[in-house]
Amino acid sequence: MTKKILRVNMTNLEAKFEDLPQEYAGLGGRGMTSTIVSKEVPPTCHPLGIHNKLVIAPGIVTGTRAPTSGRVSVGGKSPLTGGIKEANAGTSFAQMLGRMRIGAIIVEGKHAGDDYFLLKVTNDGAEFMDANKWAGKGLYNTYKALYKEFGDTVGICGVGIAAELLGSMSGVCFNDPEGLPSRYSGRGGLGAVMASKGLKFIIADPANAPGVEIANEEVFSEGIKKLINALGEHPVTQPKGGLNSFGTSVLVNIINEAGGLPQRNFSRGQDERAEKISGEVKAEEIKKRGGIRPHFCSPGCIIQCSEVWTKPGGKDPVGVLEYESVWALGANCEIYNLDDIGELNRACNDLGCDTIEAGDTLAVAMEGGLAKFGDGKAALKLMDEIRKKTPIGRILAQGTEITGRVLGVTRIPTVKGQGLPAYDPRAIKGIGVTYATTPMGADHTAGYAIAPEIMGVGGEADPRDPKKAELSRNLQIATAAVDATGYCLFIAFAVLDIPSGLEGIVESLNGVLGTELTVADVPIIGKQILDIELDFNKKAGFTAIDDRLPEFFMEEKLPPSDEVFNVTDDELDSVF
Amino acid sequence: MTKKILRVNMTNLEAKFEDLPQEYAGLGGRGMTSTIVSKEVPPTCHPLGIHNKLVIAPGIVTGTRAPTSGRVSVGGKSPLTGGIKEANAGTSFAQMLGRMRIGAIIVEGKHAGDDYFLLKVTNDGAEFMDANKWAGKGLYNTYKALYKEFGDTVGICGVGIAAELLGSMSGVCFNDPEGLPSRYSGRGGLGAVMASKGLKFIIADPANAPGVEIANEEVFSEGIKKLINALGEHPVTQPKGGLNSFGTSVLVNIINEAGGLPQRNFSRGQDERAEKISGEVKAEEIKKRGGIRPHFCSPGCIIQCSEVWTKPGGKDPVGVLEYESVWALGANCEIYNLDDIGELNRACNDLGCDTIEAGDTLAVAMEGGLAKFGDGKAALKLMDEIRKKTPIGRILAQGTEITGRVLGVTRIPTVKGQGLPAYDPRAIKGIGVTYATTPMGADHTAGYAIAPEIMGVGGEADPRDPKKAELSRNLQIATAAVDATGYCLFIAFAVLDIPSGLEGIVESLNGVLGTELTVADVPIIGKQILDIELDFNKKAGFTAIDDRLPEFFMEEKLPPSDEVFNVTDDELDSVF
Repeated sequence: MTKKILRVNMTNLEAKFEDLPQEYAGLGGRGMTSTIVSKEVPPTCHPLGIHNKLVIAPGIVTGTRAPTSGRVSVGGKSPLTGGIKEANAGTSFAQMLGRMRIGAIIVEGKHAGDDYFLLKVTNDGAEFMDANKWAGKGLYNTYKALYKEFGDTVGICGVGIAAELLGSMSGVCFNDPEGLPSRYSGRGGLGAVMASKGLKFIIADPANAPGVEIANEEVFSEGIKKLINALGEHPVTQPKGGLNSFGTSVLVNIINEAGGLPQRNFSRGQDERAEKISGEVKAEEIKKRGGIRPHFCSPGCIIQCSEVWTKPGGKDPVGVLEYESVWALGANCEIYNLDDIGELNRACNDLGCDTIEAGDTLAVAMEGGLAKFGDGKAALKLMDEIRKKTPIGRILAQGTEITGRVLGVTRIPTVKGQGLPAYDPRAIKGIGVTYATTPMGADHTAGYAIAPEIMGVGGEADPRDPKKAELSRNLQIATAAVDATGYCLFIAFAVLDIPSGLEGIVESLNGVLGTELTVADVPIIGKQILDIELDFNKKAGFTAIDDRLPEFFMEEKLPPSDEVFNVTDDELDSVF
Repeated sequence: MTKKILRVNMTNLEAKFEDLPQEYAGLGGRGMTSTIVSKEVPPTCHPLGIHNKLVIAPGIVTGTRAPTSGRVSVGGKSPLTGGIKEANAGTSFAQMLGRMRIGAIIVEGKHAGDDYFLLKVTNDGAEFMDANKWAGKGLYNTYKALYKEFGDTVGICGVGIAAELLGSMSGVCFNDPEGLPSRYSGRGGLGAVMASKGLKFIIADPANAPGVEIANEEVFSEGIKKLINALGEHPVTQPKGGLNSFGTSVLVNIINEAGGLPQRNFSRGQDERAEKISGEVKAEEIKKRGGIRPHFCSPGCIIQCSEVWTKPGGKDPVGVLEYESVWALGANCEIYNLDDIGELNRACNDLGCDTIEAGDTLAVAMEGGLAKFGDGKAALKLMDEIRKKTPIGRILAQGTEITGRVLGVTRIPTVKGQGLPAYDPRAIKGIGVTYATTPMGADHTAGYAIAPEIMGVGGEADPRDPKKAELSRNLQIATAAVDATGYCLFIAFAVLDIPSGLEGIVESLNGVLGTELTVADVPIIGKQILDIELDFNKKAGFTAIDDRLPEFFMEEKLPPSDEVFNVTDDELDSVF
């Protein structure tokens, strides 16, 4: 019994299973999405036109009992960057696809009218249903209603109002364990690609799923044992470790301390008020108000960096407030108030927005005069403009670059049109090299140089040293490989330092696939994926000139370090 | 006494004359602007940042008694296309620069604050004045007031409210003979470049100007005599000929007949209502209501294609309603009413907007639901949003591409971000090749294939034949050369068919420059300019992928011919 592809044609509303072609047999996650996009999507096509496709793929081990492996990749041509895109999320939806032996869902074509559809996927087939009644509605109530309609055991993938606007800020949203719309393949506007085709939701019902086929149970068990041990040993990933105790927000104080936490639309790298929105303060506050911490994004995670933020009294659960979101919606907008940030994050989840892009956009909008920096209530009102689909809302929904251009702002922190994440590249140069050169547009997860530059994980690197091509390259290659496995990228913190953990990963892959991969194959796999992506972007018209940070990072010194981004163009061009 | 450069540094408000470097000695117009931009502007710079420059240059013979030669070129890096830009206009301002022996004004740097300045240029020097009182005001009243302040004999170059918004739709506006703000270097958002630096107006006062230096008066006289004869002989350019009788709008019926007049945001190529806004009807109407027709845009023009459109009774003169404007603000928006079109054109002139970009933008906005197609009053209200600097106005001010993206429209008629002019490339393929491949972004004037394809001028070519690389290339090369001379491009209609006219042009250049150019040098000069521009764009990150029309031209058939744009990528790539 082999894996399947579910091919969903939105032009004629046909969804059918196909055998997974032999050439895709060993692929998963980003490896699967980027390969299919590269084979089936013309690089020069309109990202919201009939020729683009949305590809959804679980990782190789996703759906097994491998730890921390509930990842799903979403791929396509990005309306934000104009290049290839893979955005991944941790969600039980991923595991359901894995257990149903669906290697990929390929959504293609485009419905001609204005109708929206829901696709229900079971082990036996898929059927379309009318989804118009959910259009224009927030996702919190909608996910609740969908669970009521389809039962508690399903997984949900959906897009919100921002996607209905064809906004480049719109993500593809997945359920968390509580059924909240809080797990996002957020970046690159893939929500708009899904909405442009007329598809609003995919319901995965895993009843009678056969489970992931495991070729060699013994090898697999050995492998995950090694990985579990490594995760348990490493201070970043172990129980009561940094991620488990404070979530990703553990970084707020650390990056602020390093002078690299961008404030006020990337105009300062440090602010003493940042402490108020730190992971430590947040964890304390969650305990007080009756949220959940620690928490997993998908079953089987042993890092458990997640949480459920709520209003006081445990009311109105939002889901996790990640470091990136707290920074984007907080410090970058000079909003040092967790309640405001929580509500902004809720608004993003409810509307189907990428929190990073939303925070960058709000900060640029503030610089452009639409609201005052620091005014959380005004920021919320701006998000409400998206809900109401007003002209301002339509501007914002297109993200940082367009908002900046429309408002006449010239300090626009984007690469390839995508808003920068939570690390100022002037203070921490290696991550800047990743922002500039990854085929994804500014993306910290594509090659997380922060690990060696700030955390001393996977070696040590001076954050101010501008020679970072090799570091970024190696991390980008390793990341592409991890993104294909289905493991959460956070396992990398452990396996970069503990070799047996990496062996365990490779063995778990061999166990599932029946292959004989070695650790030496990992960078080869990663490089193959990156080459596919770089080739797509080249065919889409990208050149070295697109691998640059915006001019202001070279022109404006970042207080308090007074650093500029001084990585040379030659250094950037030597990455690939 | 040699020619000068006026170098205007807006960072420290310094303006001083420099000797024209020897290497620029033979240059003018587009040759001058593209050479200086290529030498002084980093191709990857932010177009609204400190490193971009605005270059204003009269043609080689501009300011002499050579007929129809009052052209000025404005150059820089375009905020609309991201590439090099030259946009030219016919205006006495050009002739004043020529007579003052100013080879180029180079505006560089950027004023740090929010203030706007006026620069008064005389034969002896230049001085800055406060221009804040003119900010936010319409240009009709402002030009009137400026003439009152500086006297009737000056020339005015300025930018309007759209430029204050840093809108990519904003042009650089010059005076017409009546002092109206109706002569535009419209395309590419160069108005925003000027405004971004804090410069609002340049007043040219030609008192005591020495006049253009003519190296060989006899050769010059012989040359212009030949050109005058050619212009007088050719049916397109002669007195009572097509252009003289009906202006550029003579094309409305012709292009509509050919099925290539885009209607309703490029969704049809023909409409019987187009006759109502034809040049023939307009000329009749101008006579009735007491406007002016024929008319010249600058002294010494013998073609006189211009006009002054007014309200009934000769009130509220607008200036010329060009074919492109009548199409963009009319047929493309399904507005078949000359009064509405006149008011829309007045709004564009008053706000400092390129009429082509404005019309494309309005049509996309209509498709996006901001107004109904055909509703001229609603279109005027949209233009008023720009005046009021509202969010909608800010969207529109950024032009077609941004407006389309913000409103979720996928039928966006742009190349390199610039809105398409008045000829549908599905019905008339050669002009489509020019749109796709010119370094300027979609621009009909860059290689006017309509001449052979529709008018039978300069040879004959079947408009439906998709083999048009050579035709477009030759026209683009010839055009670049003409744009350097200072002659209006319309002289090409005559000289393409009458060889002695072209000889006359070359002799007039030799007369001014003291050179010994021959007709064979013309394409060499044109190619040199194009090579400079293509090189700039390449360094700015452009590839062959940017030399493509939008997807919908290949996907949607154009009624009534049901043609698609079927020029192959190879054919497009063979142009340069």
